[in-house]
Amino acid sequence: METIVRTKIVDVLKSEAFGTTVNVKGWVRTRRGSKQVSFIALNDGSTINNVQIVVDVDLFGEEYLKPITTGACISVNGELVESQGQGQNAEIHAKEILIYGTADPATYPLQKKGHSLEFLREIAHLRPRTNTFGAIFRIRHHMAIAIHRFFHDRGFFYFHTPIITASDCEGAGQMFQVTTLNLYDLKKNEEGSIIYDNDFFGKQTSLTVSGQLEGELAAMSLGSIYTFGPTFRAENSNTPRHLAEFWMIEPEVAFNEIAENMQLAEDFIKYCIQWALDNCKEDIEFLSKMYDKELIERLEFVLKNSFVRLTYTDGVKILEEAVANGHKFEYPIYWGADLAAEHERYLVENHFKSPVILTDYPKEIKSFYMKQNEDGKTVRAMDVLFPKIGEIIGGSQREEDYEKLSRRAKEMGVPEKDIWWYMDTRRFGTAPHSGFGLGFERLLLFVTGMTNIRDVIPFPRTPKTAEF
Amino acid sequence: METIVRTKIVDVLKSEAFGTTVNVKGWVRTRRGSKQVSFIALNDGSTINNVQIVVDVDLFGEEYLKPITTGACISVNGELVESQGQGQNAEIHAKEILIYGTADPATYPLQKKGHSLEFLREIAHLRPRTNTFGAIFRIRHHMAIAIHRFFHDRGFFYFHTPIITASDCEGAGQMFQVTTLNLYDLKKNEEGSIIYDNDFFGKQTSLTVSGQLEGELAAMSLGSIYTFGPTFRAENSNTPRHLAEFWMIEPEVAFNEIAENMQLAEDFIKYCIQWALDNCKEDIEFLSKMYDKELIERLEFVLKNSFVRLTYTDGVKILEEAVANGHKFEYPIYWGADLAAEHERYLVENHFKSPVILTDYPKEIKSFYMKQNEDGKTVRAMDVLFPKIGEIIGGSQREEDYEKLSRRAKEMGVPEKDIWWYMDTRRFGTAPHSGFGLGFERLLLFVTGMTNIRDVIPFPRTPKTAEF
Repeated sequence: METIVRTKIVDVLKSEAFGTTVNVKGWVRTRRGSKQVSFIALNDGSTINNVQIVVDVDLFGEEYLKPITTGACISVNGELVESQGQGQNAEIHAKEILIYGTADPATYPLQKKGHSLEFLREIAHLRPRTNTFGAIFRIRHHMAIAIHRFFHDRGFFYFHTPIITASDCEGAGQMFQVTTLNLYDLKKNEEGSIIYDNDFFGKQTSLTVSGQLEGELAAMSLGSIYTFGPTFRAENSNTPRHLAEFWMIEPEVAFNEIAENMQLAEDFIKYCIQWALDNCKEDIEFLSKMYDKELIERLEFVLKNSFVRLTYTDGVKILEEAVANGHKFEYPIYWGADLAAEHERYLVENHFKSPVILTDYPKEIKSFYMKQNEDGKTVRAMDVLFPKIGEIIGGSQREEDYEKLSRRAKEMGVPEKDIWWYMDTRRFGTAPHSGFGLGFERLLLFVTGMTNIRDVIPFPRTPKTAEF
Repeated sequence: METIVRTKIVDVLKSEAFGTTVNVKGWVRTRRGSKQVSFIALNDGSTINNVQIVVDVDLFGEEYLKPITTGACISVNGELVESQGQGQNAEIHAKEILIYGTADPATYPLQKKGHSLEFLREIAHLRPRTNTFGAIFRIRHHMAIAIHRFFHDRGFFYFHTPIITASDCEGAGQMFQVTTLNLYDLKKNEEGSIIYDNDFFGKQTSLTVSGQLEGELAAMSLGSIYTFGPTFRAENSNTPRHLAEFWMIEPEVAFNEIAENMQLAEDFIKYCIQWALDNCKEDIEFLSKMYDKELIERLEFVLKNSFVRLTYTDGVKILEEAVANGHKFEYPIYWGADLAAEHERYLVENHFKSPVILTDYPKEIKSFYMKQNEDGKTVRAMDVLFPKIGEIIGGSQREEDYEKLSRRAKEMGVPEKDIWWYMDTRRFGTAPHSGFGLGFERLLLFVTGMTNIRDVIPFPRTPKTAEF
């Protein structure tokens, strides 16, 4: 076979160099046709669209073409021809075909017919070959690029906070233990406690639940930083919204107060959604058609509305009025309650018809590091609430006052010896600062319209599942 | 104090809006002066350069200025004035100063005088406030951005491979166990083996040592992908070159053979180094001045030379000749030996005076998944060798033939039941493909000129150390 530099299918489909010979390589989605002519739909992952390969059966012989079934991988040299049919610009009339690898129709799990998302989760190693997961993972890529672009363009520095940690003070959830101890030969001291001196780090360690505290250290020196890395929760939650391993983005900005933090969150999320619409149009249109007819409308809804800002207290009043007027919620609503997704969605979808940023939550339901308001009851927290999914971002201005922070840490049972380094930033050159966290997969659920979080990460880790 | 929108110091120093009032915020590096005038060097992390704040002492009173010592955090409103001194373009004549946070000179660890890198490692939470670590972490940011830019511009998709894994087949090193079992109450079966049914994932799990195998799955569907995430080695190596937790970049490309893989590696690393020189000039110049006079020369050396390509066999011949001619190596050299850094550096620095890509290594010293050459002895591996640090990139063309791969996995003791999903890519639509891995911190050592890998990651994890 003649060696011709490969062109990606995304570029072939845009090309107008009709009459030239091109090479494409990819996986067969379908082959159909007659005794005279065969049509191969070929995909190489660069786009959701297939290129059509038109094959003169006599040129190759039926026998040679036989193994070119769904899932086979081939290389094709052929003439680029203006497409007569609707849809694509160009098709390829095959001159030479090399078969790299076959896919036995009797065993290849991805045949033409549609598959359930549940089934595809069991073959997560092959599902990126489907239209749905090709689209989702291209969008996932683009959202990661958008995130880096947004922060880099604004002078933020990407900062890697540690994954393995010896501190358990964030209080964000149950943790996975990390160890190199021989579990068959655990040494204990006289009180019966396991001795960690011989563990790899010489103490008990876990997987991080958040990079925020270390991110604050960086913000208090580099000014504006963001993290983007994996975080872990060992909660035994088998729901469509929970993963044991997921990716978080956590910007942290010195000198930002809560108002600037809200603006940053709004600008950030709008930038990501605009990027998706600008760069992933075909993939989003496909997902919308297949799974969620209102997807694009919902993305545009976020873009065209200024996010409403109001306090938790005012939000609860609105919800209480709704109840008084006969609206039924599953969970009770009263000042001091943690809001459920139904409450958040009521504010967004029914009352304001706009994304909402709620601020100034009761201190009892928020973390020790949030800046205390002068009312003695609330803290300068903020949650960004979205249609369909509820909370998408959580953040706060941080308590910069050493004494207040120290008192609150004590009240909430965070031992100061575990956070001496964190307290140091309040001891030495403290300053107002703020930040927030966005669960990457939460963003992806919103942008793709998928409803199960296991479908927006390549290899989901959930209770009893760590395949691949 | 009047509210004026803050300008970052990096922008103030470039500004020519002399006569206007600006606001800057940051941490005091030094304060010196006389009874009449005080000079504050202020830094906000946005650049290695400080802005000079000129303070008329009478305007504020000595008492007010007293707490403005090294490490204090202040906000300054003042007039932007063309600088009379050498160095900076602009300085600020203070009109108002707000002290956010003081830093008691008796306890603040970062006083004016230089500190050893060893000491700074112990206060990793504060070291980004130094010139050295500010520079390093800004460069770290820029290298991450360059990596994403390089791959995105070439149509690669960023792909998140799992961190927690149930497979231990890569053979890249010792692993950390991840568990939620209660270590005080481990259940064992009749043979005395620990029962993992009640562990979070229902089986024994560890932290990944590489995302390559999962990356290959993605390449065999999306075409061109790259990973960029944390990886872990539980090796008890207390050296300046080892971390227990580090970040890896692993591109994987369908249809690339070894020659294209080499070209990609060369283009990639040159792009990153060019980006550093273009975007981190002042930080690199500072590090060069302080730590490594030949740094910039070495970076340019890589850029201006085409990487020499030769086989391991030819490389060993050259090394054997060197020994015959009287060159002394610490480690013996012979065909079949793993090359030590001294061998790699000899080829790069003494013999070729150019970066080198060695290929076709003996199969015994390489992994099971590398493509077997027809000689039956070597595999299509490639290592990119650099001055000063030796191997910076390791990669290979992958074995795409199911039977050969299966046989080699067996020979090397990799149980097929653990990699059924990996084998599936060779069973269904297999194709040639190649990839490589770059240790992010290895790249940073090269670009910053630092010699201890603990100094190029914010919070190093090493044996007995998991602080912060």
